Amino acid sequence: MTYNELYQEILLKKSYLCVGLDTDINKIPPYLLALEDPIFEFNKQIIESTAEYCVAYKPNIAFYESLGIKGWISLQKTISFLNTHYPKHFTIADAKRGDIGNTSYMYAKAFFEEFSFDSITISPYMGKDSITPFLEYKNKWAIVLALTSNEGSKDFEEISDTNGQKLYENVLKTTQNWANHEQMMYVTGATKAIEFKNIRKIVPKHFLLVPGVGAQGGNLEEVSKYGMNNHVGLLVNSSRAIIYASNSSDFALKASIEAQKVQKEMEIYLENIYNKL
Amino acid sequence: MTYNELYQEILLKKSYLCVGLDTDINKIPPYLLALEDPIFEFNKQIIESTAEYCVAYKPNIAFYESLGIKGWISLQKTISFLNTHYPKHFTIADAKRGDIGNTSYMYAKAFFEEFSFDSITISPYMGKDSITPFLEYKNKWAIVLALTSNEGSKDFEEISDTNGQKLYENVLKTTQNWANHEQMMYVTGATKAIEFKNIRKIVPKHFLLVPGVGAQGGNLEEVSKYGMNNHVGLLVNSSRAIIYASNSSDFALKASIEAQKVQKEMEIYLENIYNKL
Repeated sequence: MTYNELYQEILLKKSYLCVGLDTDINKIPPYLLALEDPIFEFNKQIIESTAEYCVAYKPNIAFYESLGIKGWISLQKTISFLNTHYPKHFTIADAKRGDIGNTSYMYAKAFFEEFSFDSITISPYMGKDSITPFLEYKNKWAIVLALTSNEGSKDFEEISDTNGQKLYENVLKTTQNWANHEQMMYVTGATKAIEFKNIRKIVPKHFLLVPGVGAQGGNLEEVSKYGMNNHVGLLVNSSRAIIYASNSSDFALKASIEAQKVQKEMEIYLENIYNKL
Repeated sequence: MTYNELYQEILLKKSYLCVGLDTDINKIPPYLLALEDPIFEFNKQIIESTAEYCVAYKPNIAFYESLGIKGWISLQKTISFLNTHYPKHFTIADAKRGDIGNTSYMYAKAFFEEFSFDSITISPYMGKDSITPFLEYKNKWAIVLALTSNEGSKDFEEISDTNGQKLYENVLKTTQNWANHEQMMYVTGATKAIEFKNIRKIVPKHFLLVPGVGAQGGNLEEVSKYGMNNHVGLLVNSSRAIIYASNSSDFALKASIEAQKVQKEMEIYLENIYNKL
């Protein structure tokens, strides 16, 4: 999917919501466990009930991996279902991969060829050759971790170098030498809305994938106020608050209601964009 | 596996060699492709022919992941084969994982429970809560990336903070507050043997997993000279130079010869250790 296609989908749906498929076998409605593939069945119903309110889906790969082979089968069915029935939704493999060049090529092959995701999240720790293999695929995206939403982000991401530049700022600056905003996005945690102003100075054009709105305590209004650029430039993720809105047979309906709530709020924040069209 | 068990195995085998199972379907002897599971068959023969010369095996998870479900099945068979027939060999899932706390728990579950590895490699970028979930498993190990062997290591790992401390040095220091040498190891690239002196000052007791000897150009003599501590404290990995020593039906024999060569060289470097016993 291209930068412009994603932008157009956001305008069409009046939403920059990404639904996180952090599907946990211990948290889905228990009655689903009687089915052959409870994880896929849950995802399918979540997708069908939320698709009109969001522009992206982000399976959290760890949740599938934790189930072994069975989990990978559920993941494969989920991404095939998305690509077949919702080809205009942007898909993110939230995998936080990254390794030396010849190994990163293998991760790119896994997620872009075997599983046909549009994008993958990547840890920048190992530097350039751990990221560039992901950039060799046309219309696929590398989503690089910059400032994450967890407590541990202060341990290394926020350490300043001799120029007073924090590690995550260095990541934002340096990686721009390797790809532009049409191939790269950044993960920037929503619990640090105040930092968005600064982030936008460094990466004015890039899409930012913002986790942490909802269960992790981020604030959608602040994120939108400081994070939005003139092509929106935001994908705001919500996982638990939407997919676990109910633990009963009405889970898909309740997920739909929660997703719509977020979409309605986003519609307000998008007003400036529409006014300029 | 405990610290002392690993040390005893090294003494017994006179080897601190780790064989990297970077098994690439395009590089294994073509005649294996006629079999039902060529990747597993290759691994099985490599393991059987090298087990007496090494103390550890390190499947590079990307290579399996790149084959989709089939690859995960080959990985599962490989780790089961190791745990059944070679339970005293230390097993490393070279996966470079790491995410926010609740997600890292899932990765720990995947590799420690579903696949029963002894250890997993972890990217430290996201800080404490991305690493501590791996430490909750008894006799399992977190192997944290410090200084890697690739060109890109200079991009972020070697950046100095306001105290003149490089990021990888900070990682070595800070992570020691979270676990000691009986639960944590570090990845330190063999192409930087000169840095080992410095690394050993910061982490005198920890095992260091050293990739990059062989195809990546590292020097075993230097690594051993500067990296060894009084409990050896080294696992030196070689992948391509051993597993692809031949591309014909003699591949296992040739791998065995290469592994033995490395073991014989290691025996020389271990002399000081034996002299003190």
